[in-house]
Amino acid sequence: MTVAVHGVGTSRFGRQLDRSAASLACEAIVEALEDAGTREVDAVWVGSVYGEMGVAQRALHRLGITGVPIIRVENACASGSTAFHEAREAVRTGRYERVLAVGVEHMTSRFTGPIDPEPLDPEGRAGLALPALYALAASRYLSEGAVTEEQLAAVAVKNRRHGVSNPRAQHAGEVTLDEVLSSRLVADPLTRLQCTSITDGAAAAVLGPARGDTREVVVESSVLRSGALWDYRSEHVWGYDIVAETAAAAREQAGIELADVDLLEVHDAFTIGEIVTTEAVGLAAHGEGGALAASGETAIGGRIPVNPSGGLLSRGHPLGATGLAQVAEAVWQLRGEAGGRQVEGARRALVETMGGGVSGIDGNACVVAVLAR
Amino acid sequence: MTVAVHGVGTSRFGRQLDRSAASLACEAIVEALEDAGTREVDAVWVGSVYGEMGVAQRALHRLGITGVPIIRVENACASGSTAFHEAREAVRTGRYERVLAVGVEHMTSRFTGPIDPEPLDPEGRAGLALPALYALAASRYLSEGAVTEEQLAAVAVKNRRHGVSNPRAQHAGEVTLDEVLSSRLVADPLTRLQCTSITDGAAAAVLGPARGDTREVVVESSVLRSGALWDYRSEHVWGYDIVAETAAAAREQAGIELADVDLLEVHDAFTIGEIVTTEAVGLAAHGEGGALAASGETAIGGRIPVNPSGGLLSRGHPLGATGLAQVAEAVWQLRGEAGGRQVEGARRALVETMGGGVSGIDGNACVVAVLAR
Repeated sequence: MTVAVHGVGTSRFGRQLDRSAASLACEAIVEALEDAGTREVDAVWVGSVYGEMGVAQRALHRLGITGVPIIRVENACASGSTAFHEAREAVRTGRYERVLAVGVEHMTSRFTGPIDPEPLDPEGRAGLALPALYALAASRYLSEGAVTEEQLAAVAVKNRRHGVSNPRAQHAGEVTLDEVLSSRLVADPLTRLQCTSITDGAAAAVLGPARGDTREVVVESSVLRSGALWDYRSEHVWGYDIVAETAAAAREQAGIELADVDLLEVHDAFTIGEIVTTEAVGLAAHGEGGALAASGETAIGGRIPVNPSGGLLSRGHPLGATGLAQVAEAVWQLRGEAGGRQVEGARRALVETMGGGVSGIDGNACVVAVLAR
Repeated sequence: MTVAVHGVGTSRFGRQLDRSAASLACEAIVEALEDAGTREVDAVWVGSVYGEMGVAQRALHRLGITGVPIIRVENACASGSTAFHEAREAVRTGRYERVLAVGVEHMTSRFTGPIDPEPLDPEGRAGLALPALYALAASRYLSEGAVTEEQLAAVAVKNRRHGVSNPRAQHAGEVTLDEVLSSRLVADPLTRLQCTSITDGAAAAVLGPARGDTREVVVESSVLRSGALWDYRSEHVWGYDIVAETAAAAREQAGIELADVDLLEVHDAFTIGEIVTTEAVGLAAHGEGGALAASGETAIGGRIPVNPSGGLLSRGHPLGATGLAQVAEAVWQLRGEAGGRQVEGARRALVETMGGGVSGIDGNACVVAVLAR
């Protein structure tokens, strides 16, 4: 059964202490349902990391969506993508006709400062919270000559420029290379403007069997994998292998080559993340992802735009919502509804999200999906 | 595709500060894999409420289960049942051949005293934590003459007696009606011995296509539903409707009547819970569940044993593990491996778990499954 996305919606993204998780989820769900032209769904998958028990049920009750199965999933930063993946599988296997996937995270009500290391997480206890883990990858790249500090910063410049045309992004303005490099150091070599933010937001999608509608976006593939325990002696930095393997499987399931893809929305929680990901999915050889980012080829108007939405560096990163926000962007792009950030003629998009840290305790998951018009 | 449970396993249950969630999960998974005679699975569903991100991944890594999809689900007290349900659906729809469902909760590392009300939960803020919500149902039953205090207490006496033969239960000894009634009042009319406990533990099951093995237990049905917003003016107490509807759907999916069931494992987090549930599933008419519990008919050796494992009142209630611990008990019973608590000639079991509170915010979910030999 071919599965289509019939509607998407998101809230605005940013610190929103005036809004509740339920309110944000409602906003995204209502937009997605209206976009899909339906008010009824047969099942709901909810992605959220820090949300309380049944985090989306208040929103769903408010909208009269009761009685149907509601399944909340968590897969670290890939929680929203996991909800999307499971919703697609539910339609593909014939379990349900109309499935709602929703992701929501209200992080400001949980975190007042930087994210504390999880107490049972050995990396976290060693000070290796996620910014530090990504910084280690960036340091290795720098020491190998596989990237320059300017190339790292170029990712932030590009994505913040894209984000200028994204009215729902947390961060609105352009930044210069100098501003990125001279912003506060978070985890050497990653500066503040190379890191995503604490964000409140929600995103949703309505999936169902493809009907051949002109507006519908088909899910050509969606693959979910967990990673193996990473080892510093590995040939690649942390995260490369799981993204490479998941993306290869997603291309194979869709029956396409990367050359058939017109744009990518990838997990740029940190600048090095986008660079490693573009290499892992095959856009650039090892050590050439930084140059690619600096070249303009992955900017809107370039050969293969990466993160035309502005990515997590602009949109922010409401963990459970992020994957579905990426899907929403892909759908808008493929329909030609992306306004000032439209990738002209986009017919196929690849969406990638990776969640978790090095070790098992805080999870390691990757979802790659291919969507096409 | 008919789905079978090929192996089950659990840890011991109780306060286990010397054990980690990963260690408990490992114990349950290893037993389930050995029971199933396999070391490989194609996908994993994990049920946990309070577990950290990727709570089971450390255990899975330790066992070499990497690369496969791992999906953590949360559905309040029905989280383990949701993992079981999703694992069954994954096999039934042909997504995977060998699926591991695991539930784990290490509650003592999270709660040092009674569970705090969730800060955004209006019932919790009003002091209506779950013991109080169940107590309101019990009070209504008392005021309607639908139950007596002695009948409520009889549930605890019965289940603790069953639990004497369950070597993995948190609470080992028998209790008398007087002891139950005179134990500390938690939420009027529910006394301490009528409430389940803070528990650490894990449980697991390996599911796959039925092969016709003599030991295998077939999943005849599994239904998951969420509830509607409950209203105090409802004809039934909170929880009755969702259990009744889910159980009816599960019987229909299995093509059986309740008379075809030989034993039930149900959600007796509080004594009133078992009474309402036996009425909701149709074992007793409204107002007669208490008399049924006191009659001995639902004791081992009676007409239709309920909670031969000792239930949550004996086993304890490690939220994410509970549903899979119930499934494990059903499997042991149907195979004739339940030792001193064996229900003679048991061929079919019904398993029920309900999660969440009155309102949407803390979720409301029910899973009912029918297993048969």
